Amino acid sequence: MKKKTQSGKRSGHKALLLMAASESSADMLYFSGLFVPDPFLAISLNGRRIGVLSKLEIARARHESKFDELIEFEPLREEAKHAFPEIVSPLVAMVALLAKRYRNRIFHVPWDFPAGLARGLEAADIKVEPVAGSLFPQREIKTEAECLAIREGNRASEAGLKAAWQVLRQSRIRGNKLIWQGRILTSERLRQSIDEACLKRGAVATRTICAGGDQACDPHCAGSGPLRPDQLIIIDIFPRLSSNGYHGDLSRTFLKGSPNPDQVNLVKTVRKAQRRALAAIRPGVALKTPHLEVERCFTESGYRTECHNDVWQGFFHSTGHGLGLDVHESPRISTVPGKFRSGMVVTVEPGLYYPGLGGCRIEDVVQVVPRGIDYLSRFSYNWIIP
Amino acid sequence: MKKKTQSGKRSGHKALLLMAASESSADMLYFSGLFVPDPFLAISLNGRRIGVLSKLEIARARHESKFDELIEFEPLREEAKHAFPEIVSPLVAMVALLAKRYRNRIFHVPWDFPAGLARGLEAADIKVEPVAGSLFPQREIKTEAECLAIREGNRASEAGLKAAWQVLRQSRIRGNKLIWQGRILTSERLRQSIDEACLKRGAVATRTICAGGDQACDPHCAGSGPLRPDQLIIIDIFPRLSSNGYHGDLSRTFLKGSPNPDQVNLVKTVRKAQRRALAAIRPGVALKTPHLEVERCFTESGYRTECHNDVWQGFFHSTGHGLGLDVHESPRISTVPGKFRSGMVVTVEPGLYYPGLGGCRIEDVVQVVPRGIDYLSRFSYNWIIP
Repeated sequence: MKKKTQSGKRSGHKALLLMAASESSADMLYFSGLFVPDPFLAISLNGRRIGVLSKLEIARARHESKFDELIEFEPLREEAKHAFPEIVSPLVAMVALLAKRYRNRIFHVPWDFPAGLARGLEAADIKVEPVAGSLFPQREIKTEAECLAIREGNRASEAGLKAAWQVLRQSRIRGNKLIWQGRILTSERLRQSIDEACLKRGAVATRTICAGGDQACDPHCAGSGPLRPDQLIIIDIFPRLSSNGYHGDLSRTFLKGSPNPDQVNLVKTVRKAQRRALAAIRPGVALKTPHLEVERCFTESGYRTECHNDVWQGFFHSTGHGLGLDVHESPRISTVPGKFRSGMVVTVEPGLYYPGLGGCRIEDVVQVVPRGIDYLSRFSYNWIIP
Repeated sequence: MKKKTQSGKRSGHKALLLMAASESSADMLYFSGLFVPDPFLAISLNGRRIGVLSKLEIARARHESKFDELIEFEPLREEAKHAFPEIVSPLVAMVALLAKRYRNRIFHVPWDFPAGLARGLEAADIKVEPVAGSLFPQREIKTEAECLAIREGNRASEAGLKAAWQVLRQSRIRGNKLIWQGRILTSERLRQSIDEACLKRGAVATRTICAGGDQACDPHCAGSGPLRPDQLIIIDIFPRLSSNGYHGDLSRTFLKGSPNPDQVNLVKTVRKAQRRALAAIRPGVALKTPHLEVERCFTESGYRTECHNDVWQGFFHSTGHGLGLDVHESPRISTVPGKFRSGMVVTVEPGLYYPGLGGCRIEDVVQVVPRGIDYLSRFSYNWIIP
């Protein structure tokens, strides 16, 4: 995943200042190419990447990071303390010293730059300008290496779906329970099998959704307790590759046993909506087009979206989102401005949720290419598990 | 993990404004009690917790969160747009509307509150005051429920260490390689076994360290490639419980084969330093005391800390850190001001690192109690695996 990207593109090579942990900030990971658990300072100046890292991290950074210049945190802190004894915050003093050293007192910062640090810098007469929107708009357009990584992430999701299928296949129906390996099958046990399968593919799955029946009608409910036969079970797996931080993200809806006609109709309609959304995607098309297409498909098929007693039912989330170092990143596929551009990677995941009947979501990942889309995920749409 | 804590304690019941994803922000998770993948707004006002959640999350929040009041994001955004047509940012308009509704225009915000939002709020004449240091200082003092959770996190770490021991025990030495289940044992394969063991205990391990030989001399190097016999192997496991977000954090240093006298001396000295650090901890003692004790122990034993050709060797990290919803949280055990207080939970993890000889780190987790410490982790200090 090592690659040089043009930093400062958006801001016309203005200086950029970041302060974040790259394990949690995708922007910092994109910029630094190094996993660091604690927040650290980084600067982009005239296309050069400068990182301030503690002696605990700096040796690793020399081999693994994208930085052109590395500064050791501890000596810089001491030097800054002596250079600016009037500044209380060590971090502010350090940025002040760097500002002086590089003769630059105006920094663009990400929208989510720490307000406490911004305040301190302003008091020290260093100007910070938060960037509205994406800090690195080029993150929306995936390189070939990034697509390979996302494909690899989806290999992990696919392994998870396969594991889930196998567990449900091996389970036996006893009354309203499923028995697997001699014990009641729960969301927790199914999730365990899925997450283990992801791990074997080098990816860490967190908050994997295995929700059956009415639980699945809350799209972000992870699911708990016994899974039931003849119920729709939504499985949504979005693991992160440990090697490079890219994600997979796939959903299927399974049913162990025999579906009733309403369940069959629900699943068929969601799949139809997904196909229509996928068919609508190509460069230049508005981001909202596939979303409106999904809404239209559901309405035409008689599925209404409304709020009953404070609970939404029908289709009440976006149709998809960008996928990469963040599991939810730009662009969103919903009623937002903007157009699809070649190279974008997005999920397409319409869903319908009706308490009493159950929920269904079907999700794939595609890259926008000149002629339409390329799939970065591949898994069967079979859903009835005998 | 559901518990009401006194919010606004530090700020004397001043209003608090947060904007973060609780899956990545421990403060937001502590405040909301709900895992949400995307950033959302939350307010603390006169001890009441108010959350603004999308229709995708709000049903779950009703059952699972600590919020006293829930506001649906989408209608609030529409109302705010009409109430403040002159404000471009929907988020700023929403906070402006809430400020008006609750008759409050001054908010304390966490130090890492988004600078872009802070800037927008100031322009809308809403004052934000970043809090220096901990937003919830009470997070330092763990409740009984939190200690139970951390103990449970360490059960996962212990299961990981046990898995590592077993893999190394089952491995056979062939030349300078270790063979496990017919194939060369690598850091990656060992990590896989550890992370699977954590998963079985309901915890997600990320960036588990399994580093042998000179790789282990870089304390945050995760380790890669073949593990060797007769080499020190540092294993550091800090998984997060999926149920409540609390962490375990344990390290041991193993050696498969036969150690040489220098390795024996290194491990003995690190363990001696750890014992001395642990013995120094009790309420009222300075946080730096155990750290200075470790440094003294190493110096007395002839282990020097210095920088050779840009690479640090010896002991060059802190002696420990607070553990809870964040894997690294307040307090730090190093040359910082402050004292131990009853209820704090900290790691104690001295280490020594010398390229050529190898690295050793031994880490346990303890709670500070009136008479000294209570262990929240328990694992053998045997390190030579025949």
